[in-house]
Amino acid sequence: MQTINIGLIGFGTIGAGVVKIFQQNGDLLTQRTGVHFALKGIADLDITTDRGIQVDPSLLTNDARALLDDPQIDLIIELIGGYEPARSFVLQAIANGKHVVTANKALLALHGEEIFTKAEQAGVEVLFEAAVGGGIPIISSVKENLGANRFSSVLGILNGTCNYILTRMGEEGEAFDAVLCDAQKQGYAEADPTFDVEGIDTAHKLALLCGLCFGTRVDFDQIYTEGISKLSALDIEFARQFGYKLKLLAIGKFDGERIEVRVHPTMVPFEHAMAKVDGVFNGVRLEGDFVGPVMLTGYGAGMNATASAVMGDVIAVARNLAASTAVRSPSMGCPQKVLASYPIKPMDEIVSAYYLRFTVQDCPGVLAQIAGVLGKHQISIESMIQPHRHEAEAVPIVLMTHEAMERNVRRALEEIDCFELVREKSLMVRIEDNLQ
Amino acid sequence: MQTINIGLIGFGTIGAGVVKIFQQNGDLLTQRTGVHFALKGIADLDITTDRGIQVDPSLLTNDARALLDDPQIDLIIELIGGYEPARSFVLQAIANGKHVVTANKALLALHGEEIFTKAEQAGVEVLFEAAVGGGIPIISSVKENLGANRFSSVLGILNGTCNYILTRMGEEGEAFDAVLCDAQKQGYAEADPTFDVEGIDTAHKLALLCGLCFGTRVDFDQIYTEGISKLSALDIEFARQFGYKLKLLAIGKFDGERIEVRVHPTMVPFEHAMAKVDGVFNGVRLEGDFVGPVMLTGYGAGMNATASAVMGDVIAVARNLAASTAVRSPSMGCPQKVLASYPIKPMDEIVSAYYLRFTVQDCPGVLAQIAGVLGKHQISIESMIQPHRHEAEAVPIVLMTHEAMERNVRRALEEIDCFELVREKSLMVRIEDNLQ
Repeated sequence: MQTINIGLIGFGTIGAGVVKIFQQNGDLLTQRTGVHFALKGIADLDITTDRGIQVDPSLLTNDARALLDDPQIDLIIELIGGYEPARSFVLQAIANGKHVVTANKALLALHGEEIFTKAEQAGVEVLFEAAVGGGIPIISSVKENLGANRFSSVLGILNGTCNYILTRMGEEGEAFDAVLCDAQKQGYAEADPTFDVEGIDTAHKLALLCGLCFGTRVDFDQIYTEGISKLSALDIEFARQFGYKLKLLAIGKFDGERIEVRVHPTMVPFEHAMAKVDGVFNGVRLEGDFVGPVMLTGYGAGMNATASAVMGDVIAVARNLAASTAVRSPSMGCPQKVLASYPIKPMDEIVSAYYLRFTVQDCPGVLAQIAGVLGKHQISIESMIQPHRHEAEAVPIVLMTHEAMERNVRRALEEIDCFELVREKSLMVRIEDNLQ
Repeated sequence: MQTINIGLIGFGTIGAGVVKIFQQNGDLLTQRTGVHFALKGIADLDITTDRGIQVDPSLLTNDARALLDDPQIDLIIELIGGYEPARSFVLQAIANGKHVVTANKALLALHGEEIFTKAEQAGVEVLFEAAVGGGIPIISSVKENLGANRFSSVLGILNGTCNYILTRMGEEGEAFDAVLCDAQKQGYAEADPTFDVEGIDTAHKLALLCGLCFGTRVDFDQIYTEGISKLSALDIEFARQFGYKLKLLAIGKFDGERIEVRVHPTMVPFEHAMAKVDGVFNGVRLEGDFVGPVMLTGYGAGMNATASAVMGDVIAVARNLAASTAVRSPSMGCPQKVLASYPIKPMDEIVSAYYLRFTVQDCPGVLAQIAGVLGKHQISIESMIQPHRHEAEAVPIVLMTHEAMERNVRRALEEIDCFELVREKSLMVRIEDNLQ
């Protein structure tokens, strides 16, 4: 029986999950692939903390380079995250002719082209199912089974931390800061939550999905990214009254010429399956020209689910080995040289329906003023809620618009925000209505 | 550039969809795989009917054997359905060293072991993504990316015809027969709908899913199969009042020793994503020991979606060819020889909550009689609805039970059905509550 020798770099939560799968399901992996899986070494800066699993101490090392340079090792699993030294490690593994499985979306969103090109030249696989959507088999589905489709859109709830916070804000009516603080205590949010709550992590994942689905390079710096920290429980409640749920949505669209690649709080119809993706669940919805809409949901993070995705890629490499082939599918589903470089549509030009919340002094005529400005900018109102007046000086006016061009909405809001009766910067949330 | 030569047998709806993909997305397929796709022949008994697509007439033939015996052809796509001559054709293709892609669940559910064993011996792939769940990439996900998991359950809405009928019965309050008749007129149901509405088609698909997920042979004849033809709009309405939706659910479970493999009308919680799988959509939910719950939804049938799944398999064979390997993954995710033969748990022993509908003469004391029998058989009632009395002689009593053993429920119903005050055979619908 063939053996695949594996070096694991990064022994954090997911790394521990991967080791757990080797231990618990190693027999199953061998049954399914006909290959023996041998974990030859685990590198981490910290090799003393108890991960809750028994590991042969001789496997543990501080020296990642020793694994990268070990000629016996066929495959490196990179789970340290971040840009460096992950990038150097991955490039070194490739240079040494080793296959790479990684969960590192930040690295691939920014340095994917370099890494994948090097991998193609070296004739090794770089697989990254675990980088997007936790355990959900979205990357492999797009690359393989759905590969006969031209995709027109990919939408996703891709960050468990944000989704957990928004779900709890909705259920408990609590403020963002309070829920975030509690999420940190419970381990659902990092000590520095910026990457998660400001949408950056979601944008990393969206860059990879858009690249795969649309067959294009995606310039990460051009992705419009807006997080959830400015949202209030009030907006979630108003959304509910309008029949929507508030989610941090990753949106990729392709019209054949330009791509939309944007991450922002988005209202989705309450009855759509995407609105049911709550808590730490992730969901991705694709629209292909033949398959139509396909949606996949599952745990978006966590030790076990993410380790499952890592191991799915390890199985793929093992199957290649068993079939005496080095590489089977290019990392992005097609060779780097055939990737297009479609331009990203500027946000000013996107068309969407909008939820708008104004905070105004409660005077007669203020709504007429607002409506006048909106009308002037070709924005028509679909529905409106002016809640009961409390004795407070400032009251919200919330409304949903029909589809409008973002440029017009921004200009209208700038104008409205100059009104004397407007007491706070107006809030705008985009609506994604065209779901099936 | 390498060329993959393909013979298509069966030029019906899905066959036409496959040809359409070759025509519309052939360039994309080549970009993604580096292989040229050449359709060398299309065999069907009927080669004159207009399929709405332009085909080179020289490709059309009545002689499937000519394609099967053509040494140039690498891959046969079998889309004629049914047992014979599909089985002979597939076996001949394998014997001639050709890979096979098929959408034929009936064939594989009954003759899979023979076909897959022959394929392993011949060193060819037999792939069947399109056999289950239309365009949903469920088979490949279980075989490949989720392959590191031991699965404890697989649940699915797998028949678009049934789901369409149940959805319309629920929305319109119409009777089964009327909706079926209309579905037939609209092309959503066959002239002879038995295979669909009696759950046989769903059972074929479930047999394949259970085999894949649990790594076992499944004796098709032992699958408990109950269709939707006995359901009334009344039951759908009562389900709604209890917070459930009525679906034809395929249920596979594995406790490590025995498998449950059953198809029957099932109530699922209204708020669960499975209840949102309406109309012609299909949905499959897996539970793996590491990945946790994963759910996939999409079109369960139709020309384009099913053709997308067929072509996903064709891409897989092309990628193998490009990688100079014949076979990469065994058809059932593991070699036939390591498949187990877990026994199917008898229905008498399954444990479920139940919806029970009794049709009784409206007399005082009848509920007490029924409750007495249920209690005697260790069945406890969770909730009950006794609708307003109309002047009719027979009225329904509906109730939901806590979890009980099926044997006890059957015995209780037999006893109750003997009561003089009971006017019709009582109806029992199982409830699937443990969803996340």
